[in-house]
Amino acid sequence: MNHTITRSLSFFFALLFLLLTTVAQAATDPLPSWNDGTSKSAITAFVQAVTDKSSADYVQPSERIAVFDNDGTLWSEQPAYFQLYFVIDRVKAMVAEHPEWKTQQPYQAVLEGDMKALAASGKKGLVELVMTTHAGMTTDEFAEIVKKWIQTAQHPTLHKPYTQLVFKPMLELLEYLRANDFKTFIVSGGGIEFMRPWVEGVYGIPPEQVVGSSIVSKFEMRDGKPVLVREAKLNFIDDKEGKPVGINQHIGRRPIFAFGNSDGDLQMMQYTTLGTDKKRFAGIVHHTDGKREFAYDRESHMGRLDKALVDAESNGWTVVDMKKEWKVIYP
Amino acid sequence: MNHTITRSLSFFFALLFLLLTTVAQAATDPLPSWNDGTSKSAITAFVQAVTDKSSADYVQPSERIAVFDNDGTLWSEQPAYFQLYFVIDRVKAMVAEHPEWKTQQPYQAVLEGDMKALAASGKKGLVELVMTTHAGMTTDEFAEIVKKWIQTAQHPTLHKPYTQLVFKPMLELLEYLRANDFKTFIVSGGGIEFMRPWVEGVYGIPPEQVVGSSIVSKFEMRDGKPVLVREAKLNFIDDKEGKPVGINQHIGRRPIFAFGNSDGDLQMMQYTTLGTDKKRFAGIVHHTDGKREFAYDRESHMGRLDKALVDAESNGWTVVDMKKEWKVIYP
Repeated sequence: MNHTITRSLSFFFALLFLLLTTVAQAATDPLPSWNDGTSKSAITAFVQAVTDKSSADYVQPSERIAVFDNDGTLWSEQPAYFQLYFVIDRVKAMVAEHPEWKTQQPYQAVLEGDMKALAASGKKGLVELVMTTHAGMTTDEFAEIVKKWIQTAQHPTLHKPYTQLVFKPMLELLEYLRANDFKTFIVSGGGIEFMRPWVEGVYGIPPEQVVGSSIVSKFEMRDGKPVLVREAKLNFIDDKEGKPVGINQHIGRRPIFAFGNSDGDLQMMQYTTLGTDKKRFAGIVHHTDGKREFAYDRESHMGRLDKALVDAESNGWTVVDMKKEWKVIYP
Repeated sequence: MNHTITRSLSFFFALLFLLLTTVAQAATDPLPSWNDGTSKSAITAFVQAVTDKSSADYVQPSERIAVFDNDGTLWSEQPAYFQLYFVIDRVKAMVAEHPEWKTQQPYQAVLEGDMKALAASGKKGLVELVMTTHAGMTTDEFAEIVKKWIQTAQHPTLHKPYTQLVFKPMLELLEYLRANDFKTFIVSGGGIEFMRPWVEGVYGIPPEQVVGSSIVSKFEMRDGKPVLVREAKLNFIDDKEGKPVGINQHIGRRPIFAFGNSDGDLQMMQYTTLGTDKKRFAGIVHHTDGKREFAYDRESHMGRLDKALVDAESNGWTVVDMKKEWKVIYP
């Protein structure tokens, strides 16, 4: 063989080796959308520790409960919670039967897209809008309304279906945990019945593993058919101090893994990780990527950053820098 | 070979064949404690229909939700709900710190075993007893109290641990359903936190698949430890019309299989089976065996039998005659 052929062959085999190594890495990497870094290492180290039978940190499968906030953690939440766009779209769809709304607040504000007037209607206005659009029908009817909306509605500025605005790295994380015998739950301030119709298809999380805010429902027999009628009455707010309460009510075990993105998730992360010497994990999605998603921080804690972010280091919580640590945002 | 040997051998082989057949039957019978009869056939026919992919009645695994009442359905409930004996035992254990109870109703009635005086204290007295014994501690502390009690307490007349007073045929049924990819849930009027500490070990049902009545709990940080404190305030009564509400709240799907024993379960059975042309199953444990368990009927429906029993035939519900259909009652 002459030199040229030898060199070509060497080059060919080097290339082949590189290719095979890359393929092998991709095949074994459970979190391919995560850049190597502190967050990815923290997650995989935790999962390895609690699933290794010879480890002092081993946790039996039945206790591997992982809880995830939804808005801002599994999908985007800007410029407003997506459930608000559902409310707005419902008011627009319902106005034909309620012509009086055209000159009546807070409906007029919604119909005219007047966010200033909507804000002026305050919490009372918002609750009225939620009740008008979420109550008065059966649970089956409401599920159908949500299903149709989520299939057709589009985000107002990104012009994509909301179900495409979920975070690919988090979808991989859910899969990775389930592959390691974790049971994954959503624990969201959003409406439990607003999430259930679509989260199984999108996140692989079944309805019985969704915890959320709710209104009261009531059993009735209608024409021989048993139904649950949704009433314009608050039942439970699954936010802040409510999240550990909702977790206990629905799951009845303390999670060992929690992911959130704001002070709405603070108590859930405390409940999961503090006051024990056992290995626990809490992660925070930090919205640092104004180009690919949205860059923002709240100032909810005495005019400062979210307490969850402020306390992250001292609590040993993992803060995910979206811009640096996620290769892609959306699927 | 002479005749005697030939006959002996024939007899031996006949015996062997009989033995093998019996063994094979036992190995393939998923409900060995159930006598052959209408209930056993109805159960196995239903399970075969909904799990057979070629059947028009096929139900995909994620939708195979089975719900079970607890008191009188999975374990006995006589002479009183077992949770009442927990209340009584707690009052006795706590009286050292509350000497005033000795002359104060409804505590005095409990301490003196005066059931007439206890009944006279009415619903108000009972609620006070439940709150005194179930509230004022953290959820973790309450779980420990229940665990210790269930390990040591004995039934007042049968003198056995309560966990031995569960129905063996129902344990087999739970196993059989799970082997066919059903998810089994308890939906009981009893306290959700009273059941969770022991039902996983006894029924194989994890805490997150328990629906029950509850009091309010509140998140607190105590000495840096996140806890949930149980308050003397009713949260939810999971009985009668409450059962479909509790099912929807916790599971978010309509069950396809329900088992109960009284009108406390009527709406749950209606919710599961009526108003649909799909194949559904509801079963009622009828307490007909005064010798091996207790023989009783309620007269809750206009002075007649439970409506659940009266309507069973027209609704296509399966009534299990314990005396006739169960080979054994307890394990």
